[in-house]
Parts: sequence; structure tokens; C-alpha cells
Amino acid sequence: MTTVGILGGGQLARMMALSGAPLGLRFLVMDSVADACAGQFAPMVVGDYTDEAALAEFASQVDVATFDFENVPAASAEWLSSRVPVFPNPRALGLSQDRLAEKTLFRELGIPVPDFADITDRAALDAAVTTLGAPCILKTRRLGYDGKGQFRIKTAGDVDAAWEALGAQASTVGLILEAFVPFERELSVVAVRGRDGEFRSWPLTENWHVDGVLSASLAPARVDDAMAARAIAYAKSLAEAMDYVGVFALELFCRDGELLANEIAPRVHNSGHWTIEGSETSQFQNHLRAVLGLPLGDTRMVGRACMLNWIGEMPDAHPVLREPGGHWHDYGKSARTGRKVGHATLRADSAQELAQSLTRVGEALQRQTQVAPVVHALAI
Amino acid sequence: MTTVGILGGGQLARMMALSGAPLGLRFLVMDSVADACAGQFAPMVVGDYTDEAALAEFASQVDVATFDFENVPAASAEWLSSRVPVFPNPRALGLSQDRLAEKTLFRELGIPVPDFADITDRAALDAAVTTLGAPCILKTRRLGYDGKGQFRIKTAGDVDAAWEALGAQASTVGLILEAFVPFERELSVVAVRGRDGEFRSWPLTENWHVDGVLSASLAPARVDDAMAARAIAYAKSLAEAMDYVGVFALELFCRDGELLANEIAPRVHNSGHWTIEGSETSQFQNHLRAVLGLPLGDTRMVGRACMLNWIGEMPDAHPVLREPGGHWHDYGKSARTGRKVGHATLRADSAQELAQSLTRVGEALQRQTQVAPVVHALAI
Repeated sequence: MTTVGILGGGQLARMMALSGAPLGLRFLVMDSVADACAGQFAPMVVGDYTDEAALAEFASQVDVATFDFENVPAASAEWLSSRVPVFPNPRALGLSQDRLAEKTLFRELGIPVPDFADITDRAALDAAVTTLGAPCILKTRRLGYDGKGQFRIKTAGDVDAAWEALGAQASTVGLILEAFVPFERELSVVAVRGRDGEFRSWPLTENWHVDGVLSASLAPARVDDAMAARAIAYAKSLAEAMDYVGVFALELFCRDGELLANEIAPRVHNSGHWTIEGSETSQFQNHLRAVLGLPLGDTRMVGRACMLNWIGEMPDAHPVLREPGGHWHDYGKSARTGRKVGHATLRADSAQELAQSLTRVGEALQRQTQVAPVVHALAI
Repeated sequence: MTTVGILGGGQLARMMALSGAPLGLRFLVMDSVADACAGQFAPMVVGDYTDEAALAEFASQVDVATFDFENVPAASAEWLSSRVPVFPNPRALGLSQDRLAEKTLFRELGIPVPDFADITDRAALDAAVTTLGAPCILKTRRLGYDGKGQFRIKTAGDVDAAWEALGAQASTVGLILEAFVPFERELSVVAVRGRDGEFRSWPLTENWHVDGVLSASLAPARVDDAMAARAIAYAKSLAEAMDYVGVFALELFCRDGELLANEIAPRVHNSGHWTIEGSETSQFQNHLRAVLGLPLGDTRMVGRACMLNWIGEMPDAHPVLREPGGHWHDYGKSARTGRKVGHATLRADSAQELAQSLTRVGEALQRQTQVAPVVHALAI
């Protein structure tokens, strides 16, 4: 019996365990909080990722380790990888934790990327704002996610406020200034690479964010074959450069037919949740297949799918469960402002049916605003 | 948070828990053995179904109860149903535990059934063998499954041996003599009925047994629309007569274009395992939706699917995982002769692709005999 250890016990670990159970796997989850939602379906070690005793207990019980959380300290991942195989490798994890290293890699691989600058002090910020121009965004190099650790500089006059908000972190996690990209659409490539280097990608996903948090995803994205091939080629070159094993997402901006890389998420990804019902093999099972060196599953889609994220609290399930292709995912979490507590996936054979399904759900849940951009996209 | 209690902790309970987790449910499993495989993903109460203290502990922690095992004593189900809602209802459970009551109901509802006779003593057996003619099959009225508790009477000369094997049970669980049906094909209707009476059926499944145990299932079965409609109408009338709530299977024999009812399984069924990947909603999730009074999910198929049962020990997973529509289900059990330890589902868009996939898997696993009848059926 193989036991897979997962650092982080949130919904990604939970869905990974549910998806991996049919492979005959057992799971052990490590999280700093005892009521992490993956613990409802897998045993847990409760402890901080920097707690060496907890890590040792975890390591002694697992055959291989992976992550549901990308901000596990690189030192902990390194320590762990000296005891058990860890996928993705700690270098890949560390690289994607650091916006500056990540964007530098994009550039090295010839992947278009918005202009950026390393901000080591206030003088560097002033210079960079002049070079990149406003608007631009000051971000922490590390530990930012879902719009946290970011300050949008709309005009040069915002530099003082930006520095006040984040300046103290220049000497700790580091800062990066990024040019603002007035993109039309946000896309993601969710892909998987096996231990033997085999690479597969799901069809591209189109994403809508609200306040920096994913609100809805549509697959396949509205892109032509050439653009899809280009995006997937970028993801493949990145995976190879990092010797990446497992599932990851490459987030991209699309502007005037041009693709610009935004960031890598070194794990199964919110924009890939539709693969559970919408694809032959889900991102969760393929991540496990990759990590264990098993053959990768088929990533083709069946029909079209839209995922709606539920933030803060779960809405009424009935309208989604009444839809022919309606699938419900309640992560078993308590309600909390801003928290990802669940999602729904609507699947249909045609764009028209999917738009109708989304419209019905949007009306029944009074979430017309959430579904509107997807319905609009499906009508184009 | 709703907790669903499941009596029986085998693979059916395990797959139910995995399938119900996305609905935000918690599960509690009761089984007489501590290492029951559902316990790997759900908390357990260990105790015999007749142990009132264990049942009380179980009942106090669940909001609703259901079964993974149909031979839970009717008295235990009744006791439980006085404390928590139990679906299917104990009367339906009891009825399908008793071959004589079940076949009598088939007859009452006008559902064709092979001739049968209640065998209360040796004289009744002699008389019934004369009336029904040999070959015929002597079975226990209760507690038989997967070919256990059966004796095939090939000629009148076998009556002594049959009585010797099963006669002592005439006064305990009861006996029934059934005419032997030289059927061409075995079919099953897997269907679900909600608390509000809504009824849905998956497409018919065609089944192949070896030594009385399911070996392979193909969906959809090779039946014309009229026969499928007739089979589904039988299932619907049975569900209504029993006021059944949840998923059940009706097993049928097909002979000369005629359908004959064999038996009802009052639970999710081995011949419905293909619904996990082959249908919009799996039998496991629809069973839970029914039991909880939630809207039932769509039962339409996507493509064609074949399930192969793994008995005794798990074969090598790689040949199945390499197939484009290959899905693996290891129940996490130890190997044991005759034990159902797992299954695989192969899904494809066409009969030809499915036959090719089955042929490759059969050859790689040296299980040509297991796949041959399905490949043959797909070629007709």
C-alpha cells in the first residue's frame, strides 16, 4: 500500500485524496490547523511546516510527498526531500514562490512577459516607476496569492502609499514592480509532466477574477489552435526547464492576440477544477499518476465546462443539482469572508446549452454578475 | 454538516463516501470488521449489526442511514429506522432479502419470472422438481449472494444431493426451487428513485458472470429501445410498489426476446460501477442525492463503457492506466480467493474503440477469456 503525503490540508489536498483513492492509495495530510478540510477524508499530522519533529513524523509515514500549498518554506521542502521523494522538486517549488526568479525564467525561455523590475529599495522603486510607467503594480516577491501582498500604483503620486504599504518587505520577502497589462482576457494552461518527462496539457481555460480571486473558469477557452499551441509550448518549456513532475498551471494574459506570462502555480489549480467532470482524467488524478510514475491519463475534454467559485459561504445547492450537467463541490469548510468554500461545475455538450444552464443557475442564486461574463463569452 | 451512516464498510460504502464528499457530506460506516476498506476514507463504528449498543452509537451520530450490504438483519434495520431515517425502507430491504417474497412481487406486478416453488420440506422438493422439471436450481430464500447457497439439480437423480446440501436450511432461512432458464444474456437495470418519487434509470447494462460472480459489464446493453423501455418500466413499478428510495438493480434474463426477472439488489450495484466515469452522475452520488432528498442527477451516458471485475487479487494497473479511457479502482483490500478487490472501467466513444481497448488490456493482463465475450458482443 502506497501512502502519499500532502503538505497542506485544504480543498486541493481533499480533492486529491478523493481522486487518488481509486488508485488504491492512502494519504497523510500535514497542516498547521487541526480542522483542515482534507482531514475529513484522510489522516492528518498537525504541525507547522517549519516544525522539524512534525515533519519527521510525516516523512516517516509516507512513500512520496507533494503539496496542496505552494508557500511551504523551501527549507522544509529541502529537508523533506532528503528523506522521501518530493514532487514537484523543491527547486521548482522555490522558483515559483519567487516572482522575480519566475519572470526571469520566462524571459530566459523566450516567453513574453510584462516588464518588471527588482525593487530593493525606495530609490529602485522611483526609478522603476519612471521606466515602466504608471499604472503598474508593486508586489511582494514571495508569499503573495489571490491578490494579497499587492499595491496598484495608478499614477506616480501613489508611490509613497505603495512604499508605505509594502516597503518594509523589500528587505524580507523582496519586492518586484510589474508593468500593468491592460489585458482582454486571462487564460491558464493546466498541464502535467510525468517522472519520465511525458507532458500533457488540458485544453486552455479562460478565467475571470473578482478582487484578485478566481470567480469563474470556462473550458475550452476561446482561442484559436495556433494560440493554444503556443501557450502549451510555453508550459512545456517551463516544465522541462524546472524538471517539473506533477500538475501545474501557467497563468497568461491575452492582449491583441499576444500572450504574456503572468505566473506559475506549482500545484493542481483552481482553474483546473472543471477537469473532474469535464475531462477524461482529472488534474487531481493525473497529478498523483505523475508523482507516482504511473502512466498519465487522457486530458481530452468531453463537451464544455464552466466552473463557478463559491467564496465566503456556500450558496443553495439545489439550482446546480437540478441542472443536467450540474456538479457540486462543497469543501466541508465553515463560512468565512473571502474563503474559498466550494465550487460548482456545469458541463454541457454545446456552448448554447452551457450558456442556458449558467443563466438558469445565475438567476436562481441571484449571481447573475458572476455568470454574466461567461455567458457573454459563450455567445461570441 | 450532514452525516450519512452506512451499514457495511465494503467497496460500495467506500465508493459512496468518495462520491458523496463533494456534496459536503460526512460519513460514518458500521462494519463487523475493523479493517473494512471504507474505513480508509471514513470513520467507523466496529460492531455486529445485531449489537444494539454498537447500533445505538452509530444511530446517535448520523442524520440518515443507508446500506452497502443487503443482508443486514431486518430487525436491525427496523430498530435503526425507529431512531433515524433509513433508506431504502426496511420493508424494501426485507423483501429483496427473501427470494420467495421478491418473486411473488414480480408475479403480482405482471413482471415475467421463471417458475418457482416454495420448498418447505423434502416432499415439496420432490413435487416441485416434477412440476418445474430438471434442470432447476434449489436456493436458500435468504442470505445467498454471488452463487452461494445454491445447488443446481441437473436431473431428478440430483435431488438427494441437493437436499443433503441445503435441506437443513428449509426450516431456518427457507428454500425456493427455481426453474432453470437457458438464457442468452443477463441484463441489469440500475435505477434510482428519489424521496419525492422521481425515478431515473441509467441505460441498461449487459453482464457476464463466471462461477456466479460478475466478471464484466457492458453499457449500454445490446437491446432495442422497446426492450429497454420494458425493462425500465419493470424497475419503475417495483420501486413504486416497495416505496423504494435510493439506487437499486433489477437483474434480468433475456431469452428469445423475452425478459425474465431474476432478482433485485437493494443497493448500489456492481453492474453500475461504470457510471462513475461513463455517466453524467454516478450511481453512488445519485443514491446519496435520493437518500437526502436532493435533486437527482442526469443518468445519461457519455460514449460506451465496460467494467472488468478483479476477483482475488489486483492485476497490474499499467495496461489499464495506459488506455485513453482507462480508469482504475483498487478497493484497498488484501488479496483473498474469490474476493472482489477492485475493478477497471474502460470508456470509449465508439464500440470499435472500446473493443480495441479491451483487446489490448486482455492481452497485456493475459485475461483474454475475461474480455472475449464483451469484445464479441461489441462486434455484433
